[in-house]
Amino acid sequence: MKLLKTLSIALSLAAAPLLADPLPSWNPGDAKSRITNFVERVTDPASPDYVTPPARIAVFDNDGTLWAEKPVYFQFLFAMDRLREMAATDPAVLTSDVLRAAAAGDMETVEAAGEAGLLEIVSTTHSSLSVEAFAAEARGWLAEARHTETGMAYDAMIYQPMLELLRYLRDEDFTTWIVSGGGLHFVRAFSEDAYNIPPEQVIGSTGKASYAVIDGAPTVTKDPGVFFLDDKAGKPVAIDARIGRRPILVGGNSDGDFEMLEWATSGDGPRLGLIVHHTDAEREFAYDRDSHVGRLDRGLDEAGARGWLLVDMARDWARVWPGE
Amino acid sequence: MKLLKTLSIALSLAAAPLLADPLPSWNPGDAKSRITNFVERVTDPASPDYVTPPARIAVFDNDGTLWAEKPVYFQFLFAMDRLREMAATDPAVLTSDVLRAAAAGDMETVEAAGEAGLLEIVSTTHSSLSVEAFAAEARGWLAEARHTETGMAYDAMIYQPMLELLRYLRDEDFTTWIVSGGGLHFVRAFSEDAYNIPPEQVIGSTGKASYAVIDGAPTVTKDPGVFFLDDKAGKPVAIDARIGRRPILVGGNSDGDFEMLEWATSGDGPRLGLIVHHTDAEREFAYDRDSHVGRLDRGLDEAGARGWLLVDMARDWARVWPGE
Repeated sequence: MKLLKTLSIALSLAAAPLLADPLPSWNPGDAKSRITNFVERVTDPASPDYVTPPARIAVFDNDGTLWAEKPVYFQFLFAMDRLREMAATDPAVLTSDVLRAAAAGDMETVEAAGEAGLLEIVSTTHSSLSVEAFAAEARGWLAEARHTETGMAYDAMIYQPMLELLRYLRDEDFTTWIVSGGGLHFVRAFSEDAYNIPPEQVIGSTGKASYAVIDGAPTVTKDPGVFFLDDKAGKPVAIDARIGRRPILVGGNSDGDFEMLEWATSGDGPRLGLIVHHTDAEREFAYDRDSHVGRLDRGLDEAGARGWLLVDMARDWARVWPGE
Repeated sequence: MKLLKTLSIALSLAAAPLLADPLPSWNPGDAKSRITNFVERVTDPASPDYVTPPARIAVFDNDGTLWAEKPVYFQFLFAMDRLREMAATDPAVLTSDVLRAAAAGDMETVEAAGEAGLLEIVSTTHSSLSVEAFAAEARGWLAEARHTETGMAYDAMIYQPMLELLRYLRDEDFTTWIVSGGGLHFVRAFSEDAYNIPPEQVIGSTGKASYAVIDGAPTVTKDPGVFFLDDKAGKPVAIDARIGRRPILVGGNSDGDFEMLEWATSGDGPRLGLIVHHTDAEREFAYDRDSHVGRLDRGLDEAGARGWLLVDMARDWARVWPGE
């Protein structure tokens, strides 16, 4: 009897991980079922849709997909704070009207300068320092800065259901990648702590960079100027260059993710495209077609016909933040 | 007695992998000892030099380090063959003097055009097709083409001692990467079969690329023009962008690898820099300071003072090719 009891405990312990819900923060329903069904199909060696582990590539946008992006991309808030700090030390860094406006908090002028203005602010605040010094700056800011509406640290405004999805996929031998329009070095400053995604699995926009021995120290320096914008049609190009395989699972939230969704889900075999739809004004934010950040218009129109899963935050997520 | 015998067999089987020589094609001596000592130091949890598996990044140049590069980079031979083939179908592709000279086999004119000429030949033959179509072209060429001196397939001219080193490192939980001046998509066409290095761990030079839906098929296309040259000071920049960690082991063979050796071996903690020195005119080729490909001059002068390991092919390698 004792042996039988021991055996029975051992068996139930062994079975526990299989029975536990891998996505406890996802409400029961179509979204959750489609995700788990997909994962079961591609990981079951007996399934006609079986995919070998090396080809289990899952990619996710960051802003609005893994963490929040309202009222504006958090990286831009970092750039604005850093610009003010730089200007306080040396006003000579403010070499243009848009930089002077940004440092003075004149957002109307900044907005009027459009994308070129934003890129100038980001480039100015993200260059002329080593990659290590930049990472330290970004980490320092994340440790101190707080979101004006929620009062939360920015790297706490990550989505618990997506954290569970990332972990579930990795437990099932997927490799999880970030494919962000945000800056490569900025996202890397928190991706490992926040998402358990290592630096080599972060794809992002990049500024120019150079190598030199500076004061005896071999150094990679972030230089002014944009090298590659990892957005829209840039995303499939970057995924090809960095990963070299077409992902089988893609998550995004805006039309900036349309092309990578289109490209990845058009490959042979089983594919899952997923769009986080921000429908939850109470717990997070509600926006889509008319938003200045994370605009979702074409994706909203075409998701159904293309078989992409629209995740309704208000309906499909039992909670939003890890701290809840 | 029977139990004891079973136990004894089981123990010897378990111990076998520890006792087997992981580098059988390396002759006993300083080079082999320095490699195995380094690996033992960084993998022994009790060692002050212990490095956790995620930080065990090893990077290797390709041409002249993992496979041969004489009489000229194999990728250039592919480009020349492909140019002739393209010109036979449509002579209009020959839009410049250097392209016409290359198609006619006039190597003097091609050489006189220098690096710009080479890049034009490579760009012309490596663009205006999808990344998948290009991979098929490169694989088709590798399957058919033979080296004029050895008569071997090009992807058979890989170095057995380096294959053993790659495998040894992976067995010890290193991640192995290629950092090649050659083209990303060209190297990927054989890196998995030849070296067991997957596409996401290949870093190389890249041409421009774009994404579009072509005849209904979402497609990443290789376009004319150079996007990034992964050579010399470009190598540390690319390693930072792609891996985001400073490697602890670097292998190269030419001054094109100098900067990545310098950068990686200057990091904190244990580091190993390794240069394959082509000293073996009998079994492979002998060249260094005066060679047009794989020129090794500054590296040869400074390796000693910088503590980099100069691997003497003639002395340190028991065999060169896998087929021997």
